[in-house]
Amino acid sequence: MEQHIGFFNSILRANAVIIEHEALKDYAKDCTEDLEYIPQVALLPSTAEQVSKIMAYCYEHNLPVTPRGAGTGLSGGALPVNGGVVISCKNLNQILDINTDAFQATVEPGVINEVFQNACKEKGLFYPPDPASKGSCFMGGNLAENSGGPKAVKYGTTKDYVLNLEVVLPNGEMIWTGANVLKNATGYNLTQLVCGSEGTLGFITKIVVRLLPYPKENLLLLASFNDIATPCRAVNAILKAGITPSGLEYMERNAVDWSMRFADISLDLAAETEAILLVEVDGNNLETLYQDVEQINGILEEYDCSNVFFAESDLEKERLWKVRRVCGEAVHSHSIYKEEDTVVPRNHLPELLTSVKAIGKQFGFESVCYGHAGDGNLHVNILKGEMDDEAWNKTVKLGIREIFEVCKNLGGTISGEHGIGLVQREYMDVVFSVTQLELMRSIKKVFDPKGLMNPGKIF
Amino acid sequence: MEQHIGFFNSILRANAVIIEHEALKDYAKDCTEDLEYIPQVALLPSTAEQVSKIMAYCYEHNLPVTPRGAGTGLSGGALPVNGGVVISCKNLNQILDINTDAFQATVEPGVINEVFQNACKEKGLFYPPDPASKGSCFMGGNLAENSGGPKAVKYGTTKDYVLNLEVVLPNGEMIWTGANVLKNATGYNLTQLVCGSEGTLGFITKIVVRLLPYPKENLLLLASFNDIATPCRAVNAILKAGITPSGLEYMERNAVDWSMRFADISLDLAAETEAILLVEVDGNNLETLYQDVEQINGILEEYDCSNVFFAESDLEKERLWKVRRVCGEAVHSHSIYKEEDTVVPRNHLPELLTSVKAIGKQFGFESVCYGHAGDGNLHVNILKGEMDDEAWNKTVKLGIREIFEVCKNLGGTISGEHGIGLVQREYMDVVFSVTQLELMRSIKKVFDPKGLMNPGKIF
Repeated sequence: MEQHIGFFNSILRANAVIIEHEALKDYAKDCTEDLEYIPQVALLPSTAEQVSKIMAYCYEHNLPVTPRGAGTGLSGGALPVNGGVVISCKNLNQILDINTDAFQATVEPGVINEVFQNACKEKGLFYPPDPASKGSCFMGGNLAENSGGPKAVKYGTTKDYVLNLEVVLPNGEMIWTGANVLKNATGYNLTQLVCGSEGTLGFITKIVVRLLPYPKENLLLLASFNDIATPCRAVNAILKAGITPSGLEYMERNAVDWSMRFADISLDLAAETEAILLVEVDGNNLETLYQDVEQINGILEEYDCSNVFFAESDLEKERLWKVRRVCGEAVHSHSIYKEEDTVVPRNHLPELLTSVKAIGKQFGFESVCYGHAGDGNLHVNILKGEMDDEAWNKTVKLGIREIFEVCKNLGGTISGEHGIGLVQREYMDVVFSVTQLELMRSIKKVFDPKGLMNPGKIF
Repeated sequence: MEQHIGFFNSILRANAVIIEHEALKDYAKDCTEDLEYIPQVALLPSTAEQVSKIMAYCYEHNLPVTPRGAGTGLSGGALPVNGGVVISCKNLNQILDINTDAFQATVEPGVINEVFQNACKEKGLFYPPDPASKGSCFMGGNLAENSGGPKAVKYGTTKDYVLNLEVVLPNGEMIWTGANVLKNATGYNLTQLVCGSEGTLGFITKIVVRLLPYPKENLLLLASFNDIATPCRAVNAILKAGITPSGLEYMERNAVDWSMRFADISLDLAAETEAILLVEVDGNNLETLYQDVEQINGILEEYDCSNVFFAESDLEKERLWKVRRVCGEAVHSHSIYKEEDTVVPRNHLPELLTSVKAIGKQFGFESVCYGHAGDGNLHVNILKGEMDDEAWNKTVKLGIREIFEVCKNLGGTISGEHGIGLVQREYMDVVFSVTQLELMRSIKKVFDPKGLMNPGKIF
């Protein structure tokens, strides 16, 4: 790599070319298990043109390139498994435009999701996708993984907001994938092809999204249940009643307990509580929302809900959401874990839950489940605990494969919002045929004939 | 072709293999200008397996294949420009499942949009995309062109509802593009790649869409204006007020007059009226909707609206919507026309309208404009009238190119919901660079290395 550093230094400021081993460790991990891969160099460009020059150079010199957001990913998409060059979004961090006439915004990929959301909110506009890591994750990473979040049940995921992307292709050429419009039937949808492609097709340097008017009001409640599957049935009943909540979050008891401890928040749950639902409704008319909540309460009662706690203030709402948001970190503080991002048609969630527990028993692992019940998207956290490495690296994987087979048989798939990255690629054959995989690989080759862009991911 | 008919007859019923010249005329036109291309044979399979066998055979024998929906397209996507084989969706016309638990449905591509909508409505569910041709157009065509319709401003277009597609690839292999889930981060988004690809990548044989609860109430009003650009400004003001109507339709006066005559409906418009807006709001709470309408009325007044007509009954609503829906046919009954499906960020609609009229003057053509003002999607109908063929085939095209340049400069593009098909392909270079077009062509080659699938379209 030494012979290339001179070039990188000629393009970037000195502190934007990182080569010291200790400093490179900051670019070696994300939030996936305890995996670590140290790159040979990490680059922090601050303009799209710099990215283009770097990529053209790497292409010419056959250097593998791994794009990196904030490192909050849960499938290892940002890990430089082949070493090589990491290009970080960190210094591409400008909100370039929030257009209150067009309801559109243009941002660079290193903008933090929550920073962007707040900037929109200040102008009365709403960018709904808000992963649990919204306080630190980057918009570029959200695009790469097609991130979701609790509001997806009403508002959809990242892919439902992106209109247009500026992308540097592996050979350094720059394109826009679409146009800044709400409707587009002009050629192939390159925007949706790049969204969710996990940095394997190019490096995103600008993101144009559509925005909504900010909903003026919201109400939040926490419902407790004495078994793990009934809340998922209640979710279905709420939606069938014609109400579309802006959040329908599920957590098993362990996840709640660990999160409360991690966040130093105490919620008054009965000893019998096995699982909870967070239900949020939003809109412009508070009266309508109270009517919705009343109707939801009635449904929850029918589904054996043992207690409903209604958040009376913004502070209480924030506390409840925080318990949900810290969940991943809380589990991590408890044990190394494998995160499975299962997703099925939402009416099949009870079957999925039951199967996960049965498979855990069979293969000897414990799991904690939580996630977006309204979307059928269940995060299955498999705990390492005291398990030996042999079991962790072999037996557990057989169990995960079984879980994914169940997902497939229920009409679902193996990732709802975390992506395939490094750690799920070995399971792709569960849901895709050779023909499907070959199509995807060939599309990859169209963009990246040398296979240099985020190698070792997805396939 | 004669030598191949025996094979087709061995796969299909006798009346599903059409070879007589007169009968083939039914497969030679769509709704694009007065274009006609007669295929050598038209096939009407009734199972996906038949489609697969036909496609495998055509691939082996290098026969061009043109998929065909109901022939309501406006860009010539279904025209068999190279002759060859037309495969019609007509007999693939089953609604296979409407799942009221999962809020999902599976249909074959020959199901008529409105038939499907009504079947969903009967079960309390809502499939929003409703092109003007909803009474005759097929779901398969909607998928191929990523169709929109008046509800897109609140509910999005076809691409926002499709979850998964069964597709027969040009070589006869069958794949599913995704999974039956609301969130998906598992490999490349083949579903969105096929949606809007205008039959150039494969033949869609099954469509899985998500559904919403049917909104219980709606209100509709017609607002008149004495100039053509102000209503578009009013549209922007309504949305900025935080109201998202379920319809925000724009029509120039000529379009209204011709449509009224065509549909034999009389609306009481003042002589000075130059343009109208149809504004619909929907939801579950009638009181909230009346509040919205009151607020909208206030905004319309500020924007020099000369008159507001409030539809008092379902019959009146249906009459107003019919005037909008017959618009294309009404213009067609008046003159052959070229339909340009311009789209820009919606705040730029007034500039687009003004430019269209100025360019018309410069190049000597008349236009009638109408469309989805809430989406920035303006249908520009350029009338042939008494124009000679030289002007129609050459001069007008220079004008169209200018209009598309304006779209591009405003951040827009050349098709919002009709596709590129045959007649817009010569303008692709206005909005795409050589690199972008080469990426798309190479993706096409991945699916269709022999270039047999709907040849002569898009590129």
